[in-house]
Amino acid sequence: MLKVAIVGASGYTGVELLRILHSHPEVAVTCVTSEQSAGRPVSSVFPSLRGRCDIVLENLEPVGIAEKVDIVFTALPHKAAMEVVPTFMKMGKDVIDLSADYRIHDADTYGKWYEPHLNPELLPEAVYGIPELRRAEIAEASLIANPGCYPTSVILGLAPLLKGKVIDPKSIIVDAASGTSGAGRGAKVDNLYCEVNEGFRAYGVGGVHRHIPEIEQELSLLAGIPLNITFTPHLVPMDRGILSTIYSQPGGSVKASDLIALYEAFYDGEPFVRVLPEGVLPSTAHVRGSNFCDIGVTVDQRTGRVIVISAIDNLVKGASGQAVQNMNLMCGLPETLGLDLLPVFP
Amino acid sequence: MLKVAIVGASGYTGVELLRILHSHPEVAVTCVTSEQSAGRPVSSVFPSLRGRCDIVLENLEPVGIAEKVDIVFTALPHKAAMEVVPTFMKMGKDVIDLSADYRIHDADTYGKWYEPHLNPELLPEAVYGIPELRRAEIAEASLIANPGCYPTSVILGLAPLLKGKVIDPKSIIVDAASGTSGAGRGAKVDNLYCEVNEGFRAYGVGGVHRHIPEIEQELSLLAGIPLNITFTPHLVPMDRGILSTIYSQPGGSVKASDLIALYEAFYDGEPFVRVLPEGVLPSTAHVRGSNFCDIGVTVDQRTGRVIVISAIDNLVKGASGQAVQNMNLMCGLPETLGLDLLPVFP
Amino acid sequence: MLKVAIVGASGYTGVELLRILHSHPEVAVTCVTSEQSAGRPVSSVFPSLRGRCDIVLENLEPVGIAEKVDIVFTALPHKAAMEVVPTFMKMGKDVIDLSADYRIHDADTYGKWYEPHLNPELLPEAVYGIPELRRAEIAEASLIANPGCYPTSVILGLAPLLKGKVIDPKSIIVDAASGTSGAGRGAKVDNLYCEVNEGFRAYGVGGVHRHIPEIEQELSLLAGIPLNITFTPHLVPMDRGILSTIYSQPGGSVKASDLIALYEAFYDGEPFVRVLPEGVLPSTAHVRGSNFCDIGVTVDQRTGRVIVISAIDNLVKGASGQAVQNMNLMCGLPETLGLDLLPVFP
Amino acid sequence: MLKVAIVGASGYTGVELLRILHSHPEVAVTCVTSEQSAGRPVSSVFPSLRGRCDIVLENLEPVGIAEKVDIVFTALPHKAAMEVVPTFMKMGKDVIDLSADYRIHDADTYGKWYEPHLNPELLPEAVYGIPELRRAEIAEASLIANPGCYPTSVILGLAPLLKGKVIDPKSIIVDAASGTSGAGRGAKVDNLYCEVNEGFRAYGVGGVHRHIPEIEQELSLLAGIPLNITFTPHLVPMDRGILSTIYSQPGGSVKASDLIALYEAFYDGEPFVRVLPEGVLPSTAHVRGSNFCDIGVTVDQRTGRVIVISAIDNLVKGASGQAVQNMNLMCGLPETLGLDLLPVFP
Repeated sequence: MLKVAIVGASGYTGVELLRILHSHPEVAVTCVTSEQSAGRPVSSVFPSLRGRCDIVLENLEPVGIAEKVDIVFTALPHKAAMEVVPTFMKMGKDVIDLSADYRIHDADTYGKWYEPHLNPELLPEAVYGIPELRRAEIAEASLIANPGCYPTSVILGLAPLLKGKVIDPKSIIVDAASGTSGAGRGAKVDNLYCEVNEGFRAYGVGGVHRHIPEIEQELSLLAGIPLNITFTPHLVPMDRGILSTIYSQPGGSVKASDLIALYEAFYDGEPFVRVLPEGVLPSTAHVRGSNFCDIGVTVDQRTGRVIVISAIDNLVKGASGQAVQNMNLMCGLPETLGLDLLPVFP
Repeated sequence: MLKVAIVGASGYTGVELLRILHSHPEVAVTCVTSEQSAGRPVSSVFPSLRGRCDIVLENLEPVGIAEKVDIVFTALPHKAAMEVVPTFMKMGKDVIDLSADYRIHDADTYGKWYEPHLNPELLPEAVYGIPELRRAEIAEASLIANPGCYPTSVILGLAPLLKGKVIDPKSIIVDAASGTSGAGRGAKVDNLYCEVNEGFRAYGVGGVHRHIPEIEQELSLLAGIPLNITFTPHLVPMDRGILSTIYSQPGGSVKASDLIALYEAFYDGEPFVRVLPEGVLPSTAHVRGSNFCDIGVTVDQRTGRVIVISAIDNLVKGASGQAVQNMNLMCGLPETLGLDLLPVFP
Repeated sequence: MLKVAIVGASGYTGVELLRILHSHPEVAVTCVTSEQSAGRPVSSVFPSLRGRCDIVLENLEPVGIAEKVDIVFTALPHKAAMEVVPTFMKMGKDVIDLSADYRIHDADTYGKWYEPHLNPELLPEAVYGIPELRRAEIAEASLIANPGCYPTSVILGLAPLLKGKVIDPKSIIVDAASGTSGAGRGAKVDNLYCEVNEGFRAYGVGGVHRHIPEIEQELSLLAGIPLNITFTPHLVPMDRGILSTIYSQPGGSVKASDLIALYEAFYDGEPFVRVLPEGVLPSTAHVRGSNFCDIGVTVDQRTGRVIVISAIDNLVKGASGQAVQNMNLMCGLPETLGLDLLPVFP
Repeated sequence: MLKVAIVGASGYTGVELLRILHSHPEVAVTCVTSEQSAGRPVSSVFPSLRGRCDIVLENLEPVGIAEKVDIVFTALPHKAAMEVVPTFMKMGKDVIDLSADYRIHDADTYGKWYEPHLNPELLPEAVYGIPELRRAEIAEASLIANPGCYPTSVILGLAPLLKGKVIDPKSIIVDAASGTSGAGRGAKVDNLYCEVNEGFRAYGVGGVHRHIPEIEQELSLLAGIPLNITFTPHLVPMDRGILSTIYSQPGGSVKASDLIALYEAFYDGEPFVRVLPEGVLPSTAHVRGSNFCDIGVTVDQRTGRVIVISAIDNLVKGASGQAVQNMNLMCGLPETLGLDLLPVFP
């Protein structure tokens, strides 16, 4: 049994880790932390866990935690993560960090979008953990930068087109929409029920959303040249799910059936990517609660543009599920262990 | 491996059976039927299943089906169920019927609330499948009448009070509310998104809802005397969940803490009933997607009334989850096999 | 033109007052206050108002405000209201207070449920402003205690039965459910989108909700004897609306048609109460955005109980709409002025 | 008083016309029709109308209707509209058609996207009724083709950029999202509550949505050259609202502040278009129930693209509200009469 700590367990990605790991036959969660709720059972913070996961939340004391566990998930806000990750690393623990702190390879870029990095020397060690693109490296890594939710949907959505050099890398526009759990559990007026419900709006428009640098980093690697994208996130009145509708211009005339064949080949054998048949489009409702990424591909015959639509559950493939997938790879376990949960529909 | 058929798999309880059984290590679903979608893969009707459950829907031919499987779930509308269950029985198959057809012991009562029963001779064989009250009988049964969703929440909510003779059996008022999946997948204007969303309403008021006879039958058995209840269902703009708020008059003065102790003793060791501590109340959000029934008990000190609140997921403990729990018992499997899924929150 | 102040305009009842008064031909809102947003246009706090109501929020300085207006709506939390209402009164202004501070006639009762009253000498002057029951007094009043949202739905729902001495006053059970705007605009985790959405739960169970004393006060007056009720509020994942399902025991056997005739007579000519025909039940969706109270009446023939269901929009008839109705009466204007807005459906 | 008929009053645009016209001081709705509900009061189909609009639905007999009214709103499906509009025209009645039947000037284009046109000779008479662009023509017209919901949001969103020749007309990508009332009130599985709720998906992707030809027609007129767009609609789990996020490439480098100034000048004095200040973005929640179109403009400095976001209520400015605005212009009434309703928030 792997002994696991979840550092920062009072947010939505924390409870989702607990839900998933509860079904994992090789894991025991032996430590959960929360600054604000230390001393209370995690099931008093998340009553859904009652009777199955009543472990008491602890304060975040990295050394003490490291002594008790084999592997650490850090589900902290950015900055808070890089304040403690080095300690876990020094004590020889594998770390899967769900924050943004180790996703950007270049410390200056990180500094520009976030703030000065506290331990840039760790950046070369960190592996951006998207298993479909980097399975072998993940298996060898000690520090996983678990990808952001929007980036996961966009990178998986575009990888075959960029690798296959089908599209102009300068032409990418990503119009994405997320359920409200992506905004976290902080008590803000903007996230109140009545502020979100029955409304649809964009936010962070015009090239300012912090997921942009990690998307561009990974897409540039896939394309083999640096690229910039236009990225517009929207907020949807629902709990879970991200849908990214991605526009790009192909080099020449392309057919949807050929592109779908390309995607099927690229993702052949992948357990969690479902390439949809021609004419079928994904919905966040059909991946809810699961680790799937569903991808549909279309060509607008009138304008020639390629339209890729990818759907994930932001808390699963976009966060905690992918983190467990990475853990399985790091620990030599079957990649789907604990993750073969079907979507909850309706 | 148990070979299982799901007869009537194109509704919400059908897809929920498929979701749950996918995580069940001792079951293979080898036959699914649907009159309207025969010939299509079930994953084209429910895209959430794609890649994991692509079995083709068949026409409902009981003899042919019975030859292929060990056990049959019938997830048909009432009447349609009793048209085919006898054939499965004659061929020696265990049947778990999710319709109302075998829930009412008395054929006349069934006839009054539904229509004339087609095979009343089977009624004495059918066991009303609520494991917490009837575990041994279920293990011996060949035909399970799987309880209705509202009845499950009410019976589990009241059993300790009635068995313990704490309350006046004539004083019971049940005010219940259900998510919209309880209304099924039929194409009706009343169930359209815009008709349900942003509204709250009662329906079937005044002693006319068809779940009343089965609730009264079971409560009368618990109380040891015949009783009538007032039952008012409401429709909530959400997918899943039933919350029953149950009022009754105790014989004398009672304390919440004593009643909670009574509930804890009654449900001691039950894997799926969570009796909440004093001052804590259930929410459907905390059982969503799971087989739990959460129960909170309070006393209104000013009026003396006892208030019990119970929450379930109508598609799990209120239908498909309880059906699998019954199957496990019938087949001598561990009762929680395939069912230890934590609630999906948020 | 009446000059009107809205004191405490940054909550949901504040913006609803602004929405309604914008359609009122005899009113000019000349002053709006907010402690936290003073100096900003109210339309920056509520962008729905942009271009139509861009008045700047002021600090709450009662004397200065009183000099500028004819009538004051106080949409403050309890306690904050009674800190300023006396100043408005002394300066001869009519006040419509939307808080609880002047609803309870008895200062001790207020003290028990809230806190010591700061100006109990004003209580005899305050008129509990439910126009259908107290039209003449309201017209003469200088201080209106605008009723709570739940109380409005319950009092209108029960008045004919109690006045007509049809039911046992000790037998009343109110099971009510409210949209989330009733919880206000405060930044609390409990009211976040993901905490409320897809869930249904009771709160304040067991005789502890602060709307109980005002409901019991008014029902006791109607019944002619003191009474206690059992009251259970629930939270519904929707923005607006209250539905109260009210159970009681009639003295003898009654028929729904007779009771409906009683209600029709009682509310004959009322512009905002719609008594529904037999067999028709109200939904909050059908009163959304309007000042209507829809009432349906049924008898459970099997148990003899009377079931009354009443629906209002908690922000309109349950707060700001009723406040404007009271204002019209106090100012000698037609009672429906500015309020004849049809429900917004869907 | 204008006497008005609403032909096809049992859908969501029909009930919205009735809601708006109820507040219109110069209009009496004297005839409403519905094939499926003829003989019943419209308030039995839409209980929100009860007590204020109980007029009985009639069969659609154009000659008889024409004799009774001054002006006709046809809220029928396409094809059904063009079957009756000529009769109303021949009898000298002004018609505002909310279907697609008279929106496309070119009968062949109509035929390609819909079906052969039944009375192409009327097309030159029909004015595409978007008052902000065509006020004078509308005032003179006898037949208004009331614009589609998506087209209204897109055309108002792009008019200043195209008229001002700021952007490359070939570069337009429209990513739009609509509430579910846009899908109508037909009883289809796809529109059931549980199918729509908690999901987000695109539909009609790849240049096949029928609103494309009318968008392209109007944008081409504005640009002065023919153009094609990429248009992707999405379905949002909410009742009302359309948000269009529109991407385009400017000729050179542009600044958001300059573009906003351009929009403010273009829409100067318009009662229903609100151009938002720099840094402020629209939400459908802030226009709900109103005739507003809110527009925000941004430039992605990193890619140079212009991003325009426009929000409307699809049933008001996107259908029935704009129809009443057109009626006011046709009849020489103040343009905002009956339409100055503030958004309902929350």
